[in-house]
Amino acid sequence: MTTTAINTNSKTIGILGGGQLGMMLAQAALKLGHRCVFLEDADNPPAGLYGQVFKSHQLEAFIAACDVFTLEFENTPVETAELLSQQKQGIYPPPNALAIAQDRLIEKALFDELNIGTVPYRVVNSLAELQDSCNKLGLPLVLKTSRGGYDGKGQFVIKTTDDIAAAWGQLGSATTGEGGLTSTPAPLIAERFIDFEREVSIIAVRSKNGDVRFYPLVENHHQQGILSKSIAPAADAEILNKQAQKSIERILTHLNYVGVLTLELFVSKSELIANEIAPRVHNSGHWSIEGAACSQFENHIRAVVGLPLGDTSIIKPSVMLNIIGKYPNLDDILATDGVNFHHYHKSERAGRKIGHLTIISESITDHQHIESIVQQSNC
Amino acid sequence: MTTTAINTNSKTIGILGGGQLGMMLAQAALKLGHRCVFLEDADNPPAGLYGQVFKSHQLEAFIAACDVFTLEFENTPVETAELLSQQKQGIYPPPNALAIAQDRLIEKALFDELNIGTVPYRVVNSLAELQDSCNKLGLPLVLKTSRGGYDGKGQFVIKTTDDIAAAWGQLGSATTGEGGLTSTPAPLIAERFIDFEREVSIIAVRSKNGDVRFYPLVENHHQQGILSKSIAPAADAEILNKQAQKSIERILTHLNYVGVLTLELFVSKSELIANEIAPRVHNSGHWSIEGAACSQFENHIRAVVGLPLGDTSIIKPSVMLNIIGKYPNLDDILATDGVNFHHYHKSERAGRKIGHLTIISESITDHQHIESIVQQSNC
Repeated sequence: MTTTAINTNSKTIGILGGGQLGMMLAQAALKLGHRCVFLEDADNPPAGLYGQVFKSHQLEAFIAACDVFTLEFENTPVETAELLSQQKQGIYPPPNALAIAQDRLIEKALFDELNIGTVPYRVVNSLAELQDSCNKLGLPLVLKTSRGGYDGKGQFVIKTTDDIAAAWGQLGSATTGEGGLTSTPAPLIAERFIDFEREVSIIAVRSKNGDVRFYPLVENHHQQGILSKSIAPAADAEILNKQAQKSIERILTHLNYVGVLTLELFVSKSELIANEIAPRVHNSGHWSIEGAACSQFENHIRAVVGLPLGDTSIIKPSVMLNIIGKYPNLDDILATDGVNFHHYHKSERAGRKIGHLTIISESITDHQHIESIVQQSNC
Repeated sequence: MTTTAINTNSKTIGILGGGQLGMMLAQAALKLGHRCVFLEDADNPPAGLYGQVFKSHQLEAFIAACDVFTLEFENTPVETAELLSQQKQGIYPPPNALAIAQDRLIEKALFDELNIGTVPYRVVNSLAELQDSCNKLGLPLVLKTSRGGYDGKGQFVIKTTDDIAAAWGQLGSATTGEGGLTSTPAPLIAERFIDFEREVSIIAVRSKNGDVRFYPLVENHHQQGILSKSIAPAADAEILNKQAQKSIERILTHLNYVGVLTLELFVSKSELIANEIAPRVHNSGHWSIEGAACSQFENHIRAVVGLPLGDTSIIKPSVMLNIIGKYPNLDDILATDGVNFHHYHKSERAGRKIGHLTIISESITDHQHIESIVQQSNC
């Protein structure tokens, strides 16, 4: 009847970033007997409810507190990830996955190298190269910064030759490191405009011993560049699912990846076109908390601490809706059965993801009712 | 684009007790956008990972920090609950439910008053009354303290008349408030020994506006007086389910109850016999986190803060196993699909509930495999 250590297998996981993804990773980690701490400079981050938050200048204390590291924030400096890969039990996923996700040119090169179909593109370092790209790729096209863009920022759709000057005016400064778009000079990338039928994503997880499991392909809807809805599983996607699994597995193996990886794709003329990767748990996988046997968050934690992977199969078809800008009235939302609400404890601000909900009801009327409440509230 | 308050509907819920039930209540509350704080004298309680812990002598500060109160610990002093019922938005469930659950004689009287079948019993204040009870009820019988017993403690099974003196020797001091069994003098209670076929429980939740929802009847298995396994739903229990619903609804209505209430029952000769109530979320409802559309924890929080109740129906048949005394090897446990582990962050100690797992696999082989690992580890 002596009191012993809580659990000799219990680890403290250091997470780079303390947003809602870190919060949901911590929810999963605590259930498994681990603790989390976070490296995050924002005040009162959501994850702070679940563990200690360290600021960047406290990196040494953060490292000292941890057994192993991971990340929830894609724009974490690669140097920090590389430093942590040499500390304690290392960082998962590997820093090179982060480097790739932060640079659309390296990412495109990876897709090409692994024979994963992607959007035709050209590198743009000057107005002349932009004009040349418009000729070669045809219009419309999308001009993007190769580094630093997110949620639709750092993009310009060039519809006619008249737009070229304006596009260069807005984004060209990124090539010199000016204009605040990127911190260091980085080329732009011109991509052919894809008139896609739908946007989908696949999330997979790989363990330290190389096991891989896939969540089903999910259909995503965006509003003003921000994910607003994910439908799991995507309808009529049996063949696409297999293709997407092959593509993401190639990336996982190539990078000797450990943890959850997301691949976002377009469906155009029934073909998959890879858009980008996210080396982390992803908003399009939030449905898995209730909808899958084991969530993306728990599977990521399992991979990072070296536990066997969990079952990624779907329990109930799910629809995930993001709460953006303003919280809806919970009385209205929760009066419908099958609604699971996730509040991020963030203050309201237009365009900000502050919560999500997952509907597991199979009733279309329920879905439409809840969606209309959320749409009226979102801003 | 101004930053406003996080959510004007966000409340701080003050929970009496900070054990694993408080921890799981907090997990549910945080998801809904609320915060929790706890009144708990133990060091490093599980719930402390999810909110601030106040000690008993800090009651005033605890009250000041809260908007509304609830409890997870059944032996909370009724006086504290009564005090809190006058503070802020009050306490749910009502203090009288707590008073009833703490006294088996009042509890029995309630069952009698509401026509809920219970075990025949007699009050015992002396050795003479015990001998008389043995004659009237017949042997075997179970002698219990009317206050303060839990997990099989404070009980003595009298099989033959030879046991009467020993039973009185062990428990009789409770009637004078001595012997450490209860803090104040309290009668004993002699109950006829029920040779039951199985033990079951029903959990229900009632909202402030009187809505009631029922979880399905669950079958419970005990080892050395401690719950070891719950099977949800209990097999072949359609009629019993309806009877149990009627009984618990009578109690909920009678007490003008708000929150989750548990009723434990025996099944003997296919009849339900009420054993006891717990005015709180209950170990036999842990399966509902993964197995029901809305868990007992979320429904309790919804009731306490005045939100609509969630769907109590079952998503997948579940088996819940308690982890007692020692943590099993998680590598072995999680290698089987469909296992959901809940670590309580408690130190190992024989006979102590330190975690649980819920298996949602429908494979009997999986169940047996996991159960045998847990049984080998439990102590």
